[in-house]
Amino acid sequence: MPVGGALFAAAIVVAAGAFAQNGEPKPASPIYGVTIPDGYRQWELVAPALEHAPLDELRTVLGNQTAIDAYRTGSLPFPDGTVLVKLAWKHVQSPEFESALVPGAATTVQVMVKDSKKYAATGGWGFGRFIDGKPVDEAQHRTCFACHEARVKARDYVFTKLAP
Amino acid sequence: MPVGGALFAAAIVVAAGAFAQNGEPKPASPIYGVTIPDGYRQWELVAPALEHAPLDELRTVLGNQTAIDAYRTGSLPFPDGTVLVKLAWKHVQSPEFESALVPGAATTVQVMVKDSKKYAATGGWGFGRFIDGKPVDEAQHRTCFACHEARVKARDYVFTKLAP
Repeated sequence: MPVGGALFAAAIVVAAGAFAQNGEPKPASPIYGVTIPDGYRQWELVAPALEHAPLDELRTVLGNQTAIDAYRTGSLPFPDGTVLVKLAWKHVQSPEFESALVPGAATTVQVMVKDSKKYAATGGWGFGRFIDGKPVDEAQHRTCFACHEARVKARDYVFTKLAP
Repeated sequence: MPVGGALFAAAIVVAAGAFAQNGEPKPASPIYGVTIPDGYRQWELVAPALEHAPLDELRTVLGNQTAIDAYRTGSLPFPDGTVLVKLAWKHVQSPEFESALVPGAATTVQVMVKDSKKYAATGGWGFGRFIDGKPVDEAQHRTCFACHEARVKARDYVFTKLAP
C-alpha cells in the first residue's frame, strides 16, 4: 500500500469512533461534540453513588484505562484521553430484600472527555449528557462546567473518587 | 517436555489462583474454600445497590466474563466458572453535593463461585465473605445459602440483576 493509502486507512480508523455501527454519525453533545464511547460498559469501576430526591437515582462511574491509571497514581490533572462515563438509573425497592435499593429504569449516561487543548475554555473537559442515547439540549450542557468548576475545581473538576 | 512434565506445569497454573503474590496460600472461606479472585476489580459492572440501616452501605457487584456472558444471554442456571464479587462500602454524605451519598470505608468483599459438582449441596454455589481480605467465621458462612435459597432460588440463587 502506498503511503497515501496507509494514511487514508489510518484516518478511517481514527474517525471510526464518531460513527455508530449502522454507519450513521453518532449523536454528539451540543457545545462539546462529545459522543458515547464504544465499549464503555466494559470499563473498570470507579465508584457507585446514590442521588436522593428529586433524582432518586443509583449511579455508577466507569473509567477508561487512562482514567483508571490516573486515579491509581493519584496525580492531577487527569491526562488527555481520560474518559469517564456515569450511568444512572432510577432506584427502586428490591422486591427480594427489604433493606435494599436496586437499579430500575436507566435515566442518563453522562460523559466527560479530557482534551486540554480542545476544551481549554472548560478546564480541559468536554461534557455530554445523553438520554436514550441522544444528547440533551444546549441549555443543560451549559450547566455542566459551571457546577464542576464551583464545587470540585481542586480535583481537576471531577466529583467522583476511586472507591477503595 | 514429557507428558508428565506438561501435566505438572498445567497443575501449577490451575493452582496458582490459590496463592497470593507473596506465595502464601490465599485466605479461603470456611465450608466452601472460596478465595478472593485475582483481578476482580477490573471485572465488568453487573449493578450497584444501596443497603439502608443497619448496614448503610453502597455496594457494587462485578462479574467475570462467564458471569457477564450468562447475564447477557439471560439463560439460567449460570454455568460453572461463573464468579460474582460484591464490593461494599459504608455510604457517606458527599462533601461536595448535598443530595449524594458516596462510598466511604470499604466493609466487605463477598464472592459467589459456581461449581455445580463441588457445591452441589448449596445450589452449585460456593460463598465467601471477607473483611480486610480475611474470611469471616463459619457461622456467618452458614447463613449465605439459606438466605439466597429462601429469596432468589428461581434466579439460580443470585440476587443481583444486570443493570440495563
